[in-house]
Amino acid sequence: MKSVRLARYFPILDWGRNYSRDTLSADMLAAIIVTIMLIPQSLAYALLAGLPPVVGLYASILPLIAYAIFGTSRTLAVGPVAVVSLMTASAAGAIAAQGTSEYLEAAITLAALSGVMLAVLGLLRLGFLANLLSHPVISGFITASGILIATSQLKHILGISAGGDNWPEMLSGLASAIGETNPWTLVLGIAATIFLFWVRSGAKPFLEKVGLSPRAATMTAKAGPVLAVIATIIAVITLDLASRGVKLVGAIPQGLPPFTVPSVDPGLIAQLWVPALLISIIGFVESVSVAQTLAAKRRQRITPDQELIGLGASNIASAFSGGYPVTGGFARSAVNFDAGAQTPAAGAYTAVGIALATLFLTPLLFNLPIATLAATIIVAVLSLVDLKTPVHLWHYSKADFTAHIATIGVTLAAGVELGVIAGVGTGLLLYLWKASRPHAAIVGRVPGTEHFRNVERHHVFTMPEIVSIRVDESLTYLNARWLEEFVLERVAERPELQHVILMFSAVNSVDASGLESLEAIAHRLTDGAIELHLSEVKGPVMDRLADTGFVKELSGKLFLSQADAFSTIAAQVEATKDGDPFQTCYVI
Amino acid sequence: MKSVRLARYFPILDWGRNYSRDTLSADMLAAIIVTIMLIPQSLAYALLAGLPPVVGLYASILPLIAYAIFGTSRTLAVGPVAVVSLMTASAAGAIAAQGTSEYLEAAITLAALSGVMLAVLGLLRLGFLANLLSHPVISGFITASGILIATSQLKHILGISAGGDNWPEMLSGLASAIGETNPWTLVLGIAATIFLFWVRSGAKPFLEKVGLSPRAATMTAKAGPVLAVIATIIAVITLDLASRGVKLVGAIPQGLPPFTVPSVDPGLIAQLWVPALLISIIGFVESVSVAQTLAAKRRQRITPDQELIGLGASNIASAFSGGYPVTGGFARSAVNFDAGAQTPAAGAYTAVGIALATLFLTPLLFNLPIATLAATIIVAVLSLVDLKTPVHLWHYSKADFTAHIATIGVTLAAGVELGVIAGVGTGLLLYLWKASRPHAAIVGRVPGTEHFRNVERHHVFTMPEIVSIRVDESLTYLNARWLEEFVLERVAERPELQHVILMFSAVNSVDASGLESLEAIAHRLTDGAIELHLSEVKGPVMDRLADTGFVKELSGKLFLSQADAFSTIAAQVEATKDGDPFQTCYVI
Repeated sequence: MKSVRLARYFPILDWGRNYSRDTLSADMLAAIIVTIMLIPQSLAYALLAGLPPVVGLYASILPLIAYAIFGTSRTLAVGPVAVVSLMTASAAGAIAAQGTSEYLEAAITLAALSGVMLAVLGLLRLGFLANLLSHPVISGFITASGILIATSQLKHILGISAGGDNWPEMLSGLASAIGETNPWTLVLGIAATIFLFWVRSGAKPFLEKVGLSPRAATMTAKAGPVLAVIATIIAVITLDLASRGVKLVGAIPQGLPPFTVPSVDPGLIAQLWVPALLISIIGFVESVSVAQTLAAKRRQRITPDQELIGLGASNIASAFSGGYPVTGGFARSAVNFDAGAQTPAAGAYTAVGIALATLFLTPLLFNLPIATLAATIIVAVLSLVDLKTPVHLWHYSKADFTAHIATIGVTLAAGVELGVIAGVGTGLLLYLWKASRPHAAIVGRVPGTEHFRNVERHHVFTMPEIVSIRVDESLTYLNARWLEEFVLERVAERPELQHVILMFSAVNSVDASGLESLEAIAHRLTDGAIELHLSEVKGPVMDRLADTGFVKELSGKLFLSQADAFSTIAAQVEATKDGDPFQTCYVI
Repeated sequence: MKSVRLARYFPILDWGRNYSRDTLSADMLAAIIVTIMLIPQSLAYALLAGLPPVVGLYASILPLIAYAIFGTSRTLAVGPVAVVSLMTASAAGAIAAQGTSEYLEAAITLAALSGVMLAVLGLLRLGFLANLLSHPVISGFITASGILIATSQLKHILGISAGGDNWPEMLSGLASAIGETNPWTLVLGIAATIFLFWVRSGAKPFLEKVGLSPRAATMTAKAGPVLAVIATIIAVITLDLASRGVKLVGAIPQGLPPFTVPSVDPGLIAQLWVPALLISIIGFVESVSVAQTLAAKRRQRITPDQELIGLGASNIASAFSGGYPVTGGFARSAVNFDAGAQTPAAGAYTAVGIALATLFLTPLLFNLPIATLAATIIVAVLSLVDLKTPVHLWHYSKADFTAHIATIGVTLAAGVELGVIAGVGTGLLLYLWKASRPHAAIVGRVPGTEHFRNVERHHVFTMPEIVSIRVDESLTYLNARWLEEFVLERVAERPELQHVILMFSAVNSVDASGLESLEAIAHRLTDGAIELHLSEVKGPVMDRLADTGFVKELSGKLFLSQADAFSTIAAQVEATKDGDPFQTCYVI
């Protein structure tokens, strides 16, 4: 029993128990392929985050081991990713200049804060907060981030210096420095970019044509970035490009990640908690969606709240080993999956691979041009830019389109943090606006039946003294006041009105504000000498309403069916009319 | 045509057209009664706001005229109110010390900002934002404000100096200064408080007993505060209480309100916009609920979005005439209504009454003790404290109870601004939590019928290869991811599953995120070799889904009825089983 409970927080206890030799060799193979892919990617994303390249390697060691212990996905590969790297650059850049020790400290502190936030959200089971990011907001944010990231790397392809946190700043920075373009860097950068684009699209068919199996072709194509790294290093050495002004990665410290302690300076934390929260949520959403996609392919499951704990542990591990915020990445997880990884142990083996690279390979990367890394990033992120979604959204839902475009616009114009906030805000505002205007219909009886339908759409029978209102939504505080206004408006329109019937067939719940509004409606109708009746109240709703003053003091009656309500009240109205009650015949 | 459109923004054009002599005399009578009530109240609320008493009078002149032009309620009386005065004191107190010109400037700027915000919200028809304040949050806030206000006035009853923005600060301030209590002030304050409590409860029966009609008794009782003012002024003069340390109102500047220009200092606006927004929303909610209550009694209507414009105009008028934030008050509006006011013109006549008082009566108020005003406030606000609501909420809804208690707790402990924010935040969080976990049920066929019911509540027929999921809520971005998890969990539980049927009978709409999730579900099921079918999709939902890739690429079929879906698929499953398809007989 105890081990079951423990296994909830340590999924490793679950899969680790049945670990076999076959699983080991499958995991090892996947780890080797992912390691090869991850080395250039880690360096490149550290560059994007404005950090020394080695920090990208550090962020790809301990975090993977932490995820292997706490994560629930069998195949997710965590580490530095493009969007989170951009957000790190934006947040740390607000604290200090790139290259300073304060900047590095800010990045490490972001990982620590984000780790703690993710873990706390997971322990409190608050994963649902990620729902605040709707699909249109996420896809808008990813598109805009892709554009920002690609633009931010153009300076490395051109070999110039330029900065900026948003698109206008970046573009004007590029424009003013474009005269200083280094031609060698440009040629090398463009060549690497074209090669990597080809690797992405044309390499697989080519490899299949020369005889590789489809799976081997796919795996070999993933080594494209490593090939670009090797080729450009050779070009730098043979053509002596360093002396021609091509910027290189330079000396990378050799050795395992250092033990670092994140800052607990309250001032720094006060400045970083908002970006850390945004990084946490964006990272979580990206990671969970990748993990779910892969889990479904093998009919496995992930647990989103435990995923929060897994990613939290990864980020805390990153902070204590000189790294920066990490999350589950799409490309590397897909490679891990396709390469046949069976358990999170593959991630741990990848960590060993990266650690070995940090120990022995870094001197070989001295001559690696920055432009090659920039080309890697540009090719990777341009696939994030999605121009079809706005078109689809425009046709499908104007509200969702608005949230999407607002997110893209604010992200490009004012940077990633305000972009996310604007997206969440716009989405919530539109949702609340809709939720505060639910549907309700005045209904009347379809002649010859016991059915009641909307008077605006059907030829139905009604009486001027009675109005039947079908409420098509649960009553919550967001729409409670609307119901008051809706009912009182109908009353103000009809001086001859004597009875209001609220038909509750679609009301699944009534919160305290809804109840208050019902009481307010009842009081106001009583003040106007109008009786209020209810019909077709569902069982669970009735259970809660039964004990309240509203039902106890109701001026009218409770009816099980709307047909019964209408006929009973209609007869009562007829009976109280002056003269012969049968004078007007309403039978249809 | 044009006048109709104009009348929407200037309701005065509507009721002003038919203004008769009878209406005039009714309005005049009501105005006289409200004026008498308003003079001590205006002075008292200005004191509560930490402003010179005359500012309360200024805030009761032009704002009333502006509301008469733009407001839609026939009987709402605007002016200074208790809760908004407390909020003003809290916001201005963060800028400067009471009694300084900066403090007054901050109060005037608050009125201007609040006026502009209200008017803009009205023009943009954003009144629904007030829905964010649920009934439990509002009542919690009002209760806590009542306690804070009453506590803040105790120092005037004791004749000591004490401060504080929250309850702990106020109580410790009172405790440390209680030794300096002025006995004359205390006696006078307690006497006034007891008298005013009696006026509120026992005066009406007494006056009826001595021969007044019920209506006259009610109206006379409303003059109680004026009587207290006159009696204590006489006591001060005859007993020479000024020399015994009883604090007096002192010299009030005589004359009409000055023309003031609110500050446009960006620094001040940056500090004040949040409290101004909270004041606007709280004031609007209070005012609209009063206006709706009164309008319903005469079967009239108010227009909430136009009310925003009316209150906005009132606050702007207040800012330009040396006043502070105002809104529609409950007590004075009820008096206005009961006194027979027919049109907003009554408010304009009240403004004239207050202007006359400002011109001629202020010298008479020199000897008015501050303690009398404090007693007026205490008696008025203690009726705001509502201890029954938490008990009702506890029984009715734990979520609403939580929001209520959080609002009271944070308001008392940390002041009004954080209190409102905490209440809105808690309410929204609980709502989103609930919205992200909607109801769905696995359903099966009730034997011998075409009905499908929840498998957990009914004995129904199901098949291991098919799962039918009834979705009981519209799909929005808040619950879209939940549906993905719900479906994939069911799939992970059942290795023999071949078909998923989503029964959409209760789905009224699907937003873009819901559509994305449906597509994700479809892809993941296809990856797992499971077919996805839909049944009972409503017309409007189908209209939108029809053009999407989701429906075009659906692996399974669309069925009009769930019964049809289940029987068709069950037959298909049987047919594909090995051996005799009729081997197992599932007919029930």
